[in-house]
Formats: sequence, structure tokens, C-alpha cells
Amino acid sequence: MKELELIKRKSVQIFSEEELERKLKSGKKLVIKFGADPSRPDLHLGHTVPLRVLKTFQDLGHEVVFVIGDFTAMIGDPTGKSKTRPALTFEETRKSAETYLKQVTKILDKDKTRIEYNSEWLSKMNFEDIIKLTSKYTVARILERDDFKNRFENNLPLSMHELLYPLMQGYDSIALNADIEIGGTDQTFNLLVGRELQKDYKQEAQVVITFPLLVGLDGKEKMSKSLDNYIGIDESPEKMYEKAMKIPDEVLIEYFKLTTDIDIEIAKKWIDEDVVETHKKYAKEIIKMYHGEEFITQAEEKYKTVANGRIPSDIESISLSNDIQEISICDLLVKTEFAKSRGEAKRMIQGKGVKINSVLIEDINSSIKLDEELVLQFGKNKFIKVK
Amino acid sequence: MKELELIKRKSVQIFSEEELERKLKSGKKLVIKFGADPSRPDLHLGHTVPLRVLKTFQDLGHEVVFVIGDFTAMIGDPTGKSKTRPALTFEETRKSAETYLKQVTKILDKDKTRIEYNSEWLSKMNFEDIIKLTSKYTVARILERDDFKNRFENNLPLSMHELLYPLMQGYDSIALNADIEIGGTDQTFNLLVGRELQKDYKQEAQVVITFPLLVGLDGKEKMSKSLDNYIGIDESPEKMYEKAMKIPDEVLIEYFKLTTDIDIEIAKKWIDEDVVETHKKYAKEIIKMYHGEEFITQAEEKYKTVANGRIPSDIESISLSNDIQEISICDLLVKTEFAKSRGEAKRMIQGKGVKINSVLIEDINSSIKLDEELVLQFGKNKFIKVK
Repeated sequence: MKELELIKRKSVQIFSEEELERKLKSGKKLVIKFGADPSRPDLHLGHTVPLRVLKTFQDLGHEVVFVIGDFTAMIGDPTGKSKTRPALTFEETRKSAETYLKQVTKILDKDKTRIEYNSEWLSKMNFEDIIKLTSKYTVARILERDDFKNRFENNLPLSMHELLYPLMQGYDSIALNADIEIGGTDQTFNLLVGRELQKDYKQEAQVVITFPLLVGLDGKEKMSKSLDNYIGIDESPEKMYEKAMKIPDEVLIEYFKLTTDIDIEIAKKWIDEDVVETHKKYAKEIIKMYHGEEFITQAEEKYKTVANGRIPSDIESISLSNDIQEISICDLLVKTEFAKSRGEAKRMIQGKGVKINSVLIEDINSSIKLDEELVLQFGKNKFIKVK
Repeated sequence: MKELELIKRKSVQIFSEEELERKLKSGKKLVIKFGADPSRPDLHLGHTVPLRVLKTFQDLGHEVVFVIGDFTAMIGDPTGKSKTRPALTFEETRKSAETYLKQVTKILDKDKTRIEYNSEWLSKMNFEDIIKLTSKYTVARILERDDFKNRFENNLPLSMHELLYPLMQGYDSIALNADIEIGGTDQTFNLLVGRELQKDYKQEAQVVITFPLLVGLDGKEKMSKSLDNYIGIDESPEKMYEKAMKIPDEVLIEYFKLTTDIDIEIAKKWIDEDVVETHKKYAKEIIKMYHGEEFITQAEEKYKTVANGRIPSDIESISLSNDIQEISICDLLVKTEFAKSRGEAKRMIQGKGVKINSVLIEDINSSIKLDEELVLQFGKNKFIKVK
């Protein structure tokens, strides 16, 4: 089975391969569970790694169920004293889930995708149900989870309710009677809790398949929005192109392997021949995947323009008095301390070193209107934003 | 305040004395919480140690609330696979509580005694409430409890639901808005959980007072029904007298201190003078307390009789054929193998060594009716029950 091989090749661990094969061969329509965090609805390429596997399962005829962890999101994490109120309201979680669904269906078949909210079953559990659930797991086993273990052994605060979260996620598998659950390697522990709990609730244990975490644009940390090292699948073709060009050379092959269908051997050969060209090929591939081939040219053109007169995004800014409506270019250069004198300013302009909003200033008598923000540039590396 | 001194003198620990004094002086009618296990409704003298303190609080005008842990009892401990069903039904817990109330009102003022069932509030808690509750306590702190700690550190099974029990008991204090909770020293950890949780729920923390555990008749283990080293407060005056005489000499002073109002210095003097007589004084005191002075003489008489011809309770028994309605004493001695021959049997009787139901048999030709069970005795230590 070609698809099975594809899944296996990308996966890090499978619990267990025999069971996976048996379930796939059974002819039964399988329930494939995938947990989604509704508080971060902007999907990036890191998310696409498991999503693309889900698509493979859909192509094989199975049903994908996204579990929106709205219950946890609504309760919020009550550790912090400031967070005793719900982190997200009911409406917010439903809205996030909509955005989420809209985004995942860029990869998945909408008709074979089901959304479930875990508040459906978790909010209905009473103390007795929870006693039953927690009785199935020992303290020692839950404390095997790396982050719990580290905090516990290093005397860092670890509240009892935190131990309940893996069990909640595990209970989701029971509520769905999931056949397979997939996730990133960082979720291995939680996915296995579900697998184990199902046995205690007399269900067939779900197969657990874990996939690598895509490294971010910094080449170090896993891709995440909070680290701003991500390529969002909802970002513009231009932005995608620009960001793709920033992928560190040494991890580019991982991006090909985990986020595209391009043959790895071919991608390796491309990188060996010309790594910059291969970045462009990657950029075009992801634009094609998430926007369509017709957006490639425009994004490429834009990139070239910007690359030529690239304005960095993190430049300093200066505010001039509101009274000034218009100013001569030489005075502006002095006021922003780019030039020490009007004389120096003139020489800078004559040397063809001064640009405003990437446009070369050639006339030393130019008058600049200050009705909107502009970027003043000298040479290749000196920028200031003028408000 | 005399009563306060009495409470203090008997207590092992008070968290904290200043708070206790402040609360008692406030003039407010205080809620005194005491947890009761409805699965063991037969109260013994060990239970009376805290009960008598509760009576002191009632005498001071405060309200005593017994919390019947019916919720836990109804759920049962789901660790054992055989116990997935409720350990006690709703009716059973209510019936146990009635028996309990009947017994405690031998010590307490019925009108100032309130019974509450913790299923009232615990069964209504949902997952969100439980997350909130468990968020207030760290794993490290709950694992400070001795039995948890030992099991965890020695890799003995410790299920997660077990960690919830102290929090449930603690939540009882919140539900009652308890001002003071008392209990045995073995409950110190649980009582302090309640005290700490109340602060997290913006209540005034309950004062916790712990009392010693009464040692049992074996002089070693704490008094408990399962160890059969107890004096039940519902036992007959005769039984009380008999058991009181068995209290080991070296712990008799503890019995006086913890279970009577007799001045300790006086009791010490008695013991020094005549320990057997002091046992009798103790026996009479508890009969007076739990039955009434009028039952003393009868119990004392019975004890003397039994002491003279004491029949142990754990003797072997033998069944004779139903056809035999009557038997000669000599034949009976042979049949029970007390004598090897009728000749030996005669000599035993003539030696004034044979008794039936503590009555000396003097005639070797006596005929014994077998219409009811009897105890055949030879000498001081040889007994057999004949059916």
C-alpha cells in the first residue's frame, strides 16, 4: 500500500505498526483523531505536517475528526491568579474553530472532516466520572511526562489540575472511540495516555502515530507563531516567497520532506547544485499548494523588487513636529541626523545615496510632503522611519 | 476559660492557638466540623476522644456538624477491579448515618448536632469545579502526605484518584464554611488541606485541632474494630466491665485521660495504690457514662462470677449425634475425649475438676440433658463446647 509507506516514512514512531496495518486492512471506515488548539487559529507550515498525513487517510476513505479543545480553552489555566476567569468564551472558541476549519480545508477534504468540541463530553462529567477516570492512571506514570517530571524533580510548581489535562485529552479518544490518533512528537505522551485509557474503558486501543516537528525559520526552535519563525498558510504569496527565501540552507531539505510531495532525492540534488535556486523552487511550490500556480509570478516579481531595494522591517522611527507640513530634503537629512549640515546633505544627494520610500532623490531642492509616514534611506544599510 | 484549657490539654496540635482563642472570644456561634466514616457505624472509646471535645464545644454554645462521607462511600474505591460498583448504596449510607447519630448522641446534645452528607455538594461538582479545586494544590504538597509519599517513593501503586480524596475532604470545609475542624492525629494532613483550601476560596481558614489516638486493648495498635482491640460504646455493661479489666496496666492512665473527666492526678494515685482496683473504677466510670450508674452493680456481679469460673470465648466445639437426648456425665467425658475411660472420668469428677456451664459436677452418676449447647470444663484451662 503506497499511502501506508508514505505515512510510515514521515512518521517518527508508530504504536504499533502491526495494529496500524491490521486496522487499515480491516475494511472499516476508521476514525482518525487529531487534537487542535483553538486559541491559535493561524495555521503555519509546521501544522501542515500532520494535516497532510490526515489528508492521506481521507484519500484512503477514512474520517478525520478534529477535536477542538474548547473545554480547556474555556476553563483556561487557573494557575496564574490573573486567569481565574475563562480564557476564551463559548463564542470565541466557536469562531476560532470556524477559522481553523477554513484553514485546514486548504489541505483537507471538507466533506470527510468532522469537527468535535471536547466540552461536549467533558463538561458533562461529574466528580464520580472523574474519580473513575483518574483511578485508571497512577501518579508515577503521569509523572513520567518529561515536563511534569522536570518540574516535580526540580521543585518547580506543578499544580494537581495540570495532571488532569493529559487524562482529558485521553478521554477525548474514548468519547470518539478513535481508531488512530496522530500528532507531533511533542504529543507522544498524551497520545499514549488515550491509547492506554481506551483499554481501561474496554475499547480497542487507538494506534498512535507521531510526526517530526518542523523547525522554524531560525533553524533552531520548532516553528511557532509566538517565536515569529513561521510561514503561515494564510499568508500572502509575496510573504510566503519572502519567508521561504529565509529558510536556513541546512534545514531546507526538512521543509521539502515534511511539507511537500517533491521526491527527497530530487530535492537533495537541487540543493547540491544551487541552494538559492532551490529556495525559489520551494517558495513556488508552497505558493502553488496554498494559493495556486497563478500567484507565483507576481510573488516572484515582488520579491525581486524588494530584494533590490530591500527595506528592513525593524528600523527606527522619528516623529517630527505636527506643525511641519512640508520640508526640504536637505533639512530633513539634517533633522534626522543623517547629515551634520545642509552642505553634507547636498553631497549625499548628489552622490545618489538618498532614497525616500525606495525612490532615488536626485534634486537637492526637492520638497518632501509629511502627510504620511515615509522611509528615508541612505546607502544600503541606513534607514529611518519619519512620522 | 476552663473549657478551652481542657481542650488544649487533651490536644496534640492546634493550628493555631491564637486563632482558636480569637474565634472563641468573637461571640459568634461557630461551626465545628467533624468527619465521620459511615461504613463503620459502631463507635468505640477511641471515637469518644474527639466526640467529648465536640461536646465541650456544644456546651460553649457552638454547632457541631458531622460530615458523613457518603459520596466517597457511594463511589467506593475503584482501585480494586472487583469494586467498580458503589461500595454502599444511598440507603445504606443513610441507615449507617442514623445508627451513627444514635450512638454519638450518647455523648452529644442532639439539638446542637447537625448531620451533613458530602454527596450534597460533591456530587454536584463538574469538571470545571474540579479543575478549579485541583489547581489550588501542588503535586509536591499532596505527596507530602506520609502514606502517599511512602507508596510513591517505594514504587507502590498510587492511583491519581487517591490524590483527590484529601481535596474532597478539604472541600467539605469550604461547603460548610467551617470555623474549626477536629480529628485524630492521623487526620492532621487532611484537616490542614481544608484549612489551606478555604483561604484559596476566600474563606477564613478553619482552626485545626488534633487529638491523640486511643491505644487498643492490646496496648499497641490504635483502637479499632477490625483489630478487635476495642470497647464499643454500645456494648453491654457486662462486656464493658470485662473489657475494661483487660486494659494493659501501662496504658490505663491514657484511658482515664482521654475518655473520662476524672482528674489525672487522682487517677495516677489510684494506679499507684492498686492497679486492679483502678481498673474496676475505670470500668464503673464508663458504664456510668454510657449506660447509667444503675447498671454498675449487675455488671460487677457478673464479672465476679465469670472471673471465678471464667469461660474463654474462643473454645472448640463438638457436635454429638442428634439422636442422643441425654447422656451420663462419664460417657460425655469419654466422648469428648476429656477422659480415656469411664474409670478416668469418675476420678476426674471425684477430684472436683469437672464443671458444666461453670457449675461443679459432684455426682458421678449425673445425667446431662443435651437439648441446648453447654460448656464442659476440666480444671482451669480445658474447655469444650458440646452441641
